Amino acid sequence: MAGRGNPMTGPFYVEGAQPGDTLAVRLDSMVPSRDWGWTFNVLAPNVVDPIPPIAFPQLDIVRWSVDAEQGLVVLEKPTSGLAGLKLEARPFLGCFGVAPPRDQAISTGTSGEYGGNMDYKGLVAGVTVYFPVFAEGALFHLGDGHAVQGCGEIVGTGVEISLDVRFTVQVLKGKTIGWPRGESDTHWFCIGNARPLDQALQHATTEMLAMLTKDYGLTFSEASLLLGQAVEYEVANVINPAYSVVCKVPKAVLSML
Amino acid sequence: MAGRGNPMTGPFYVEGAQPGDTLAVRLDSMVPSRDWGWTFNVLAPNVVDPIPPIAFPQLDIVRWSVDAEQGLVVLEKPTSGLAGLKLEARPFLGCFGVAPPRDQAISTGTSGEYGGNMDYKGLVAGVTVYFPVFAEGALFHLGDGHAVQGCGEIVGTGVEISLDVRFTVQVLKGKTIGWPRGESDTHWFCIGNARPLDQALQHATTEMLAMLTKDYGLTFSEASLLLGQAVEYEVANVINPAYSVVCKVPKAVLSML
Amino acid sequence: MAGRGNPMTGPFYVEGAQPGDTLAVRLDSMVPSRDWGWTFNVLAPNVVDPIPPIAFPQLDIVRWSVDAEQGLVVLEKPTSGLAGLKLEARPFLGCFGVAPPRDQAISTGTSGEYGGNMDYKGLVAGVTVYFPVFAEGALFHLGDGHAVQGCGEIVGTGVEISLDVRFTVQVLKGKTIGWPRGESDTHWFCIGNARPLDQALQHATTEMLAMLTKDYGLTFSEASLLLGQAVEYEVANVINPAYSVVCKVPKAVLSML
Amino acid sequence: MAGRGNPMTGPFYVEGAQPGDTLAVRLDSMVPSRDWGWTFNVLAPNVVDPIPPIAFPQLDIVRWSVDAEQGLVVLEKPTSGLAGLKLEARPFLGCFGVAPPRDQAISTGTSGEYGGNMDYKGLVAGVTVYFPVFAEGALFHLGDGHAVQGCGEIVGTGVEISLDVRFTVQVLKGKTIGWPRGESDTHWFCIGNARPLDQALQHATTEMLAMLTKDYGLTFSEASLLLGQAVEYEVANVINPAYSVVCKVPKAVLSML
Repeated sequence: MAGRGNPMTGPFYVEGAQPGDTLAVRLDSMVPSRDWGWTFNVLAPNVVDPIPPIAFPQLDIVRWSVDAEQGLVVLEKPTSGLAGLKLEARPFLGCFGVAPPRDQAISTGTSGEYGGNMDYKGLVAGVTVYFPVFAEGALFHLGDGHAVQGCGEIVGTGVEISLDVRFTVQVLKGKTIGWPRGESDTHWFCIGNARPLDQALQHATTEMLAMLTKDYGLTFSEASLLLGQAVEYEVANVINPAYSVVCKVPKAVLSML
Repeated sequence: MAGRGNPMTGPFYVEGAQPGDTLAVRLDSMVPSRDWGWTFNVLAPNVVDPIPPIAFPQLDIVRWSVDAEQGLVVLEKPTSGLAGLKLEARPFLGCFGVAPPRDQAISTGTSGEYGGNMDYKGLVAGVTVYFPVFAEGALFHLGDGHAVQGCGEIVGTGVEISLDVRFTVQVLKGKTIGWPRGESDTHWFCIGNARPLDQALQHATTEMLAMLTKDYGLTFSEASLLLGQAVEYEVANVINPAYSVVCKVPKAVLSML
Repeated sequence: MAGRGNPMTGPFYVEGAQPGDTLAVRLDSMVPSRDWGWTFNVLAPNVVDPIPPIAFPQLDIVRWSVDAEQGLVVLEKPTSGLAGLKLEARPFLGCFGVAPPRDQAISTGTSGEYGGNMDYKGLVAGVTVYFPVFAEGALFHLGDGHAVQGCGEIVGTGVEISLDVRFTVQVLKGKTIGWPRGESDTHWFCIGNARPLDQALQHATTEMLAMLTKDYGLTFSEASLLLGQAVEYEVANVINPAYSVVCKVPKAVLSML
Repeated sequence: MAGRGNPMTGPFYVEGAQPGDTLAVRLDSMVPSRDWGWTFNVLAPNVVDPIPPIAFPQLDIVRWSVDAEQGLVVLEKPTSGLAGLKLEARPFLGCFGVAPPRDQAISTGTSGEYGGNMDYKGLVAGVTVYFPVFAEGALFHLGDGHAVQGCGEIVGTGVEISLDVRFTVQVLKGKTIGWPRGESDTHWFCIGNARPLDQALQHATTEMLAMLTKDYGLTFSEASLLLGQAVEYEVANVINPAYSVVCKVPKAVLSML
């Protein structure tokens, strides 16, 4: 495994997982295991206009209190402008996935078709995520807990925290996918990881097209008609070496097919 | 005004609007004025992976029935895969805005800081949109009705339809903004229009940063802390000459400030 | 015509030029008409890494002496580090072209398939440039003289100067092209204008593919084999609202066909 | 080392090379060791306009004869359109570099700050290339010989061939650089590897800025003035997972400093 990036647990060797299979990971529960987290305090320079150049404030680490029972996240020492700010906790895993293809060992600071540091705030408890398996045993690993985060991880962090995670894995033998997919209460989704956002969106949309044509038996045109009028996109991260875009379709729509 | 692009009504000369002001347009109501619309039937090639090259189906126009009373949009002659598909109508304006800066006359096929063909599905009845005024009288124009549409307008159209629109304009004298902003029941938002998506996102985020620091009195760091953990992005269009990305903050969060 | 952008002369109505024709403009001579020019003194923020943010020096205007006879350009008051710097003058037009399609009036700060502010340093005396005609009379205009410039115009200017220009126009009736093309002593080239660089490169390459297949009678594969091993690209500008990339093929190679 | 990508020789452990040093590799000679090479025959879909979608010809492998003594590369069985095509051989290494940072093992199909699959046609015999050292012993490796290639590697290959290469390495103790640099007879250059082209150009320009300010003692403004009017860019590859852009300054200009 490659050197430091994000803190990880694993890798776990999953019995029976072979290249060409799919690993399903159900995130059963995710609970903050300490009562504070931290974030950076300045927007990443790549998410604001480069011209004219903005003078950025000093980069600092800021601490937040996390009350897991109340489900609240608040600044420990808010300045006056943010004195009333209370955010709803929504813990998720910033980085998890399987071993990359071609025996590569890639920093947990980035992501790819094997998952990794996608920092997608939708990957909360209750969601099942599917990864393409590239190595014997899949080599699942997980880490980078966030108590809450906006879209894009645009200050470079969520509220970084340690999480107690329970999950269940299942190997889908002979089921081959190209990019991580997921199922929440309300949506099926596909995640594309690349730079720039345009390319991440292409990967995610191509994978959703594959899902609709192979798993739902739609023609290319039928999938196009459906996606054209019902697709949703989410910008998961616009900060890591690979950006992540999520292509989503409501289950309410899929259930009509 | 420039030649054909999207069908437009206007321009309307708004009394008292001067360069440097802001034009507020409240979309009071929007009702389909006919019972059908049309879409293309194939994903735009730029939203799927270029390599390996995909064989695209024949581009065709497909008709949808629009039942404004029931609020339903269905294919007129669905193929078997989409026989059960019923979408909720959600009419909005694909293209509207004011005259561009520098006396330019720009096709209604594209967009800019003056608004234009943003194809943002969030611009429904009940929303108020704010445009920077660049010309005497603002020269507001509107058109390109859509009965419903997914994010990104990824088949190149929403369900194209004619709409009866009622709106109310107001001039905010001396209020200067950089990009279109909007207010819905649930969010304040800013729209950036450019290629690629990364740059559209930069424009939208920079405008939101300006809104939070100027209108809400936050410091750069306070705005960063807020956006980092609470921002939402929406991909409005990824098909027109300028793509559109929307940077949103929940009013529930803003009301705590 | 739209308001201020770059200083322009024209537009010239060219007898007989109709939409669908091509306007050939031979740049017969270009001579600086004053003995100094100016540039900015700081790299554009968009050409350096956004992270970590760099502190940019104060933006200033710097004057250069231009000796047209000796063909030399030197700083008027160089600081010690650049005391010995002497650049060879290489005057060219930063902005010229025809009226845009669809009766648009677009700022001379940007560019498109009609030419415009491409800031391509290869457009020197002796070169013939070809523009697609979109309006009756073509409406040719020119300006934005530069005494010399690097690739990309990465400080936002060349050595800005006034030029005496002699040129000859010719209408190629019924010859239709998609983007500006050009012919120098050594190359044929096509210019694509768009953001980001990837898209500008796509436009330029697509136009070169059209030139090789239509004008030289090559098949798609033959054109690919030729371009794959002989193409050259030049980054004309990476600063304006539309970037410009030039796709070039040596005449020595074309002459073998 | 990661699994298959490009054929490689090495890695070579270079005595004395430590993280933070620079490895200088002089390419003493490069001679094709067989008399033929191969290329693909179709432009990569990502270098032409996605809309409207082009029908691509069948992807095939095409063989070229390589006459190392005459220095000529010709198609073995040219179709009529390319019967006369003779290209000058210009052998170079498509992929070479050192071990990546953080103990990563990354496919030789891509590139980064450690070098790798940059496919830059300027890396011919006589050039010295400089790599940042990230691992004990540097772990230099090389391969992917090309007999000739255009800019961008836009059919996905150069004329792929095996090469006899002689090179000399030298460790520059305590000299730290950020990206590969090089010195040819005529230029100093820096290579940036990333997607999209805009970001590769940012990396290359930032590294050149570092070279001019640290090695040549220029101020930021002096470096800007120099680069603004004298920089050259080359698109090395626009096909691999990371694109490569080269930022070049003529030695004739640097020698005046």
